[in-house]
Amino acid sequence: MKIPDIAISRMFYYLRSLKRIANKGITTISSADLADDSGITPSIVRKDLSYFGQFGKRGIGYNVMELMDSVKQILGLNKQWNMAICGVGNLGSALLSYKGFVDQGFKLVAAFDKDVNKVGKTYENTRVLHSSHILSESRKRSVDIAAIAVPASFAQEVVDLFIKARVKTILNFAPTKISVPKGTKLKNVDLTNELVGLTHFLSKLQK
Amino acid sequence: MKIPDIAISRMFYYLRSLKRIANKGITTISSADLADDSGITPSIVRKDLSYFGQFGKRGIGYNVMELMDSVKQILGLNKQWNMAICGVGNLGSALLSYKGFVDQGFKLVAAFDKDVNKVGKTYENTRVLHSSHILSESRKRSVDIAAIAVPASFAQEVVDLFIKARVKTILNFAPTKISVPKGTKLKNVDLTNELVGLTHFLSKLQK
Repeated sequence: MKIPDIAISRMFYYLRSLKRIANKGITTISSADLADDSGITPSIVRKDLSYFGQFGKRGIGYNVMELMDSVKQILGLNKQWNMAICGVGNLGSALLSYKGFVDQGFKLVAAFDKDVNKVGKTYENTRVLHSSHILSESRKRSVDIAAIAVPASFAQEVVDLFIKARVKTILNFAPTKISVPKGTKLKNVDLTNELVGLTHFLSKLQK
Repeated sequence: MKIPDIAISRMFYYLRSLKRIANKGITTISSADLADDSGITPSIVRKDLSYFGQFGKRGIGYNVMELMDSVKQILGLNKQWNMAICGVGNLGSALLSYKGFVDQGFKLVAAFDKDVNKVGKTYENTRVLHSSHILSESRKRSVDIAAIAVPASFAQEVVDLFIKARVKTILNFAPTKISVPKGTKLKNVDLTNELVGLTHFLSKLQK
């Protein structure tokens, strides 16, 4: 069954709500309460939860732990994924020190840079390797996800190396369009996109 | 008229498609073509465009330039917004050098840090000021948007200072829950969220 991307991203919000709820010692939850906590409308919550089948009990609701496990499983957060970061400039260093990745079970297994002054140095417990080792080391270290934090002009060539190394998912921070073959999942992170909700709000304020 | 956040974020994709289309010299576009280029289903594109009123002509489509201007206006991207960055660590430095902000018409007017070794230094043409000047300098420089790139434990206190300085929108990168008063718009950027679409994909691959 194909779950739309937009439902997948909402499920991450449910997971955070469920963690908060579980921390309070609550064991059962209705879709209405989950909607309330996650800030998503009840009808959408019910629709999203229907992807999990009918394990909620009418009038009783969902077992918090069971639902949390199911959401984790669908999101693929029930296991550890190996991550590599390419480009140890400001953004790459910020990614290396980003606590959220480790908290969610990601494991940083490699960092690459083509600057010989950075190679061999250790950033946040990860030793920087030269970019010429992307192909061999990504295979050896079973990289699942490659985060691309190099300048736009180098992004495609390092992505191509990761793809050669059979890395199946790319998180691209470089502000450029990247091509990947079928069977590879590319996610572009565009920080400007985050600002657009704010500018819309600002321009309504000024009216 | 209230446009849902989700429609606002899709409009940013339409804007990018329209720019590509305009660059090819195309002057008129149907909602089906826009859907095709932006990767969003035609029925959603038509619904989103209905927020702009009925200026598309049946059987002819939309004037690309007019539609681009209308989308920019709705998104608040038809004017320049002043932005401040608080926290000039790895992430803050990455934000200061992020070309996308300038390209979209954002103007970096201030950078703050509480580290006296950073204060007075210039990063990407922006001189770092001490955090104790957030209140006075944000007012003086008419900051519209404050990007928060400080450690989680300091995030709320700097946000409070920006709010005192009447900054109306906050882009929070600190991995912590921030409270803002009514009338202030807060956007949390969570990089882990970006990874969730990838882990879902990876876990399907392994089945």
